[in-house]
Amino acid sequence: MLLRIFNRVYRREFGYVWKSVSQHASQRLDIAGIYPPIATPFTQKGNVDYQSLDKNLQKYGSMPFRGLVVQGSNGEYPYLTAEERVDVVRRVREALPSSKLVMAGSGCESTRATIHLTERMASAGADCALVVTPCFYLGRMNSSALINHYTQVADSSPIPIVLYSVPANTFLDLPVDAVVQLSQHPNIVGIKDSGGDITRISLIVYKTRSQDFQVLAGSAGFLMAAYSVGAVGGVCALANVLGQQVCELAQLCTSGQWDKARDLQYRLIEPNTAVTRRFGIPALKQAMEWFGYQGGVCRSPLQPLSKVELENLRADFSLNGWL
Amino acid sequence: MLLRIFNRVYRREFGYVWKSVSQHASQRLDIAGIYPPIATPFTQKGNVDYQSLDKNLQKYGSMPFRGLVVQGSNGEYPYLTAEERVDVVRRVREALPSSKLVMAGSGCESTRATIHLTERMASAGADCALVVTPCFYLGRMNSSALINHYTQVADSSPIPIVLYSVPANTFLDLPVDAVVQLSQHPNIVGIKDSGGDITRISLIVYKTRSQDFQVLAGSAGFLMAAYSVGAVGGVCALANVLGQQVCELAQLCTSGQWDKARDLQYRLIEPNTAVTRRFGIPALKQAMEWFGYQGGVCRSPLQPLSKVELENLRADFSLNGWL
Amino acid sequence: MLLRIFNRVYRREFGYVWKSVSQHASQRLDIAGIYPPIATPFTQKGNVDYQSLDKNLQKYGSMPFRGLVVQGSNGEYPYLTAEERVDVVRRVREALPSSKLVMAGSGCESTRATIHLTERMASAGADCALVVTPCFYLGRMNSSALINHYTQVADSSPIPIVLYSVPANTFLDLPVDAVVQLSQHPNIVGIKDSGGDITRISLIVYKTRSQDFQVLAGSAGFLMAAYSVGAVGGVCALANVLGQQVCELAQLCTSGQWDKARDLQYRLIEPNTAVTRRFGIPALKQAMEWFGYQGGVCRSPLQPLSKVELENLRADFSLNGWL
Amino acid sequence: MLLRIFNRVYRREFGYVWKSVSQHASQRLDIAGIYPPIATPFTQKGNVDYQSLDKNLQKYGSMPFRGLVVQGSNGEYPYLTAEERVDVVRRVREALPSSKLVMAGSGCESTRATIHLTERMASAGADCALVVTPCFYLGRMNSSALINHYTQVADSSPIPIVLYSVPANTFLDLPVDAVVQLSQHPNIVGIKDSGGDITRISLIVYKTRSQDFQVLAGSAGFLMAAYSVGAVGGVCALANVLGQQVCELAQLCTSGQWDKARDLQYRLIEPNTAVTRRFGIPALKQAMEWFGYQGGVCRSPLQPLSKVELENLRADFSLNGWL
Repeated sequence: MLLRIFNRVYRREFGYVWKSVSQHASQRLDIAGIYPPIATPFTQKGNVDYQSLDKNLQKYGSMPFRGLVVQGSNGEYPYLTAEERVDVVRRVREALPSSKLVMAGSGCESTRATIHLTERMASAGADCALVVTPCFYLGRMNSSALINHYTQVADSSPIPIVLYSVPANTFLDLPVDAVVQLSQHPNIVGIKDSGGDITRISLIVYKTRSQDFQVLAGSAGFLMAAYSVGAVGGVCALANVLGQQVCELAQLCTSGQWDKARDLQYRLIEPNTAVTRRFGIPALKQAMEWFGYQGGVCRSPLQPLSKVELENLRADFSLNGWL
Repeated sequence: MLLRIFNRVYRREFGYVWKSVSQHASQRLDIAGIYPPIATPFTQKGNVDYQSLDKNLQKYGSMPFRGLVVQGSNGEYPYLTAEERVDVVRRVREALPSSKLVMAGSGCESTRATIHLTERMASAGADCALVVTPCFYLGRMNSSALINHYTQVADSSPIPIVLYSVPANTFLDLPVDAVVQLSQHPNIVGIKDSGGDITRISLIVYKTRSQDFQVLAGSAGFLMAAYSVGAVGGVCALANVLGQQVCELAQLCTSGQWDKARDLQYRLIEPNTAVTRRFGIPALKQAMEWFGYQGGVCRSPLQPLSKVELENLRADFSLNGWL
Repeated sequence: MLLRIFNRVYRREFGYVWKSVSQHASQRLDIAGIYPPIATPFTQKGNVDYQSLDKNLQKYGSMPFRGLVVQGSNGEYPYLTAEERVDVVRRVREALPSSKLVMAGSGCESTRATIHLTERMASAGADCALVVTPCFYLGRMNSSALINHYTQVADSSPIPIVLYSVPANTFLDLPVDAVVQLSQHPNIVGIKDSGGDITRISLIVYKTRSQDFQVLAGSAGFLMAAYSVGAVGGVCALANVLGQQVCELAQLCTSGQWDKARDLQYRLIEPNTAVTRRFGIPALKQAMEWFGYQGGVCRSPLQPLSKVELENLRADFSLNGWL
Repeated sequence: MLLRIFNRVYRREFGYVWKSVSQHASQRLDIAGIYPPIATPFTQKGNVDYQSLDKNLQKYGSMPFRGLVVQGSNGEYPYLTAEERVDVVRRVREALPSSKLVMAGSGCESTRATIHLTERMASAGADCALVVTPCFYLGRMNSSALINHYTQVADSSPIPIVLYSVPANTFLDLPVDAVVQLSQHPNIVGIKDSGGDITRISLIVYKTRSQDFQVLAGSAGFLMAAYSVGAVGGVCALANVLGQQVCELAQLCTSGQWDKARDLQYRLIEPNTAVTRRFGIPALKQAMEWFGYQGGVCRSPLQPLSKVELENLRADFSLNGWL
């Protein structure tokens, strides 16, 4: 933590003589641990509901999370303006204990917009930025283009960058060769990989092993498997709902209690799938309500769950002993 | 039918000042014809290059286009700010003869942002708005969500709406049942379909035949086939480069000269594929340069063509007799 | 080359009466026209029901088809033994007027098996062979492998070969460059393309125009569009049910009556989709029953339609005025 | 173990009165361990090369494999006739020590052919049958159809059945609900899952936990992760080449030495990908040659590796310290 503050001061004073600071693996920002990618509550009129947000933050602040991801996919970031995205990050940083990291989603389709938003996120107090792969012109987003993009962003960013590969939304897996090359950048500290391809995750850990590059699982569904092959944490939508349990799973993994971990992992799979791939954010927000958090509505065009979906969602929690 | 007319009257009296052209089915905005989805030129520094834009507009203004699509996929709209998107539309409207339509891309991921941007596009002088399907939360973008989205947008829009389905970028085909239902909305006048599935295009024409709903082919590669099954025009990236030829193909189709049309269509396929699916916007801009237009660079993360790509691009034009 | 001519002379003299048109490249077998890819009826015990087959053939024989495709995908060929495939072809050849072509599916995964089965199909009286792309080891089925495969098959085949690209079943589009090269083989006379990508079909017609290479649409859904860009016929599952109507559509296209063609084409789309992509062979066989043909059950693992599917199938025919 | 021997003796003595033996989950055939899915060597003329096969078997017989998979995807089974498939299984059974299991691929597209081939495999001495999902008519292969298929096969099979889901070849993941239901069949003892989706594998282990249902990883790339979530073995193409190492990895996993396992797992990923997804069976056979096995050519249409592919293949082994 001191190092992080030092880095910031140092950088403010001396500008981008960055390499000397971050060259040592031991000085990279430590992002190991569990993060809920928090949902953004809205009022019935569709504005950001900061009061509800604060209520959630109060609870999250006391849980053994390493930090929060703010304005990730589960935060409906594509539905927020840049102003809203920055404001939410600022509010989270203010409300959260300083011991918790704020990892702010700042990815945009263009490099210039990503650079700009990352700077604003840093100013709003984010500790690091989670930068999703641009994807609209998918056919042209080869390794070369993506390396170029991330290098420009990382070069100019005042805060460390975490790569973000989420093929379910972008239809793009950040290629392993690009990850390996980018892992050598002093201001790129890790990756959130949401694809769930455990072979790929293993390979990324292995091929970046000399760089103190930190790999976070992007989902609670394969969290234990990811730990088993060398990941150091996870950004898990389910942690918005069952935060204590996801942290416990992580702790069982890091302490080598694999048998207990396995039993807990099993019971988290279906609830996790339900609030992500199967029913999406409307389900996440609904489940949050069941567990005492402020969930509420989504912005349009996201629609509420149908009655049948709602029943299936409930079953996914109750049949695994959580409701 | 009576209800639909009543709704329109109601809306005219008490709601937005409704463009007179779209008041009755028989008076729907006629969008039949060819449109280049114009590229956005940038300066070396990456700002919008209005001078180059004007040069292109001067040429396009004198060609037999029905109008221009501004801020479609080929305009790199995901890389522009909302302000830039509106400014470019305003500039185009100012520079273009009033006989030409300005169809402005105004689609955003959220309904509220799309509504807002569509209003701004109308204020900037757009004649109608091209609204791409939201797609980020693909798993939840079913017919119901999309119908709801487009209905809200069309209800509030001061200008007619054109639906836009472009699965190559969005991985989403606007479902036919949604198109059919939306075709009944008085303020939705047509669809640009870029998927190239001619069976689907035929079906859309057929199932909306009672609505004076207008179908535009989204690419020059299947323009003639689309006309043969009842489409009334096309939004064709290739028209940025070979505008005269694309218009000639359209004219041959509408006048029933199918044999001549076929021969011309054949020679346009490979150049069209080259500037779209195969090599993308960098190729479109390069080809524009070859044919006397201002193309220039793309915004990052889009990269220039490699040497091999450049050679292949040239071959696709020269082997078909255009270079 | 001499051998090939010899083979043909031999066959003319001593075997089947060989169509004179196919003796030289300039005299290639004329395959233009409509073909139903006939279903294979089974008894309740699951054996080939030759009696029912004969009943269907009696009807098909008097319709204006160019011929029949026997043991295509709609014939459940993957569920038949090689012996059954050959026997069915033999029976069809015996029952069918000699003016109708028998195009026999003879594609297998391995080159050697395809060569062998093609020879047997020729012996059983097939006029030409329809050879589907091998696809199991998809990642290795590049142009080079496919060109090699088809060249070996065509070199050794006593009857002309028709290429067969059906990505819905194989996940493989025979690459255009491979088609172009193979079109130069004297014993490859055309392609059945079931993908429905009209741009691709146009390009194949165009790039093979110097070879008298014949393109058949693989479905009634895009038959008119395919004719408009230069196809010469179609292999249409729907022709098993609405054979007269599909032939009429073809006739309207070849005689340039495009407006009438369009109106007929529209009404065939949904019934066609219903018996192919939407509900598959169980639907095809059910619809055959409704129209006086012998359909019956499929071999397992194909299951009968559910009640809801059955109702939807009926609606697709009745709402378009066929039932 | 005793039970297995008893079963064999029982079967040999009394034939196919199998049901009474296999009805109890507690008596299910124990399939835990590592299996190479062996390649089928061919002579230059393309016939099965039994001499080369014997040489490989001699080596494999002395390695700590649980058994061999014969006529899986890596055995080029789609390129062999049913007779060849059975003959190879018979030869393997004869050559292999009786302590090793022979798991014979017997899946065909139709249920009746699968039943028949499974019986023949049993007669040829196979201990159990690996039955791939039928997939040609993919759109109709829902849970109901697949459950029906496998139930029929398992009901009639004299030997235990192992389900086989390999979406890379079939584009079909056997749905989890179907696996769960099928796990209750007394004659279905496990599944080989080659998809590599570790969340899915975990869920299958969890949802079948009351059935003594055994899950085998279908690839060495995620073998350790699969063990970590409860799999009991693996069918690994790479075990044809680095059999000792794959067995060592399995042993490290089952003995809880996860750190050592991880280091070994890492070094196996790229070689494994090279001989499977990346370059396929030609690469597997080439690598076998490098490590002292009889690999040789593939049947057409599989082609040899290009020079560049060969270099990349070598690098994938040498950079990981195996060559």
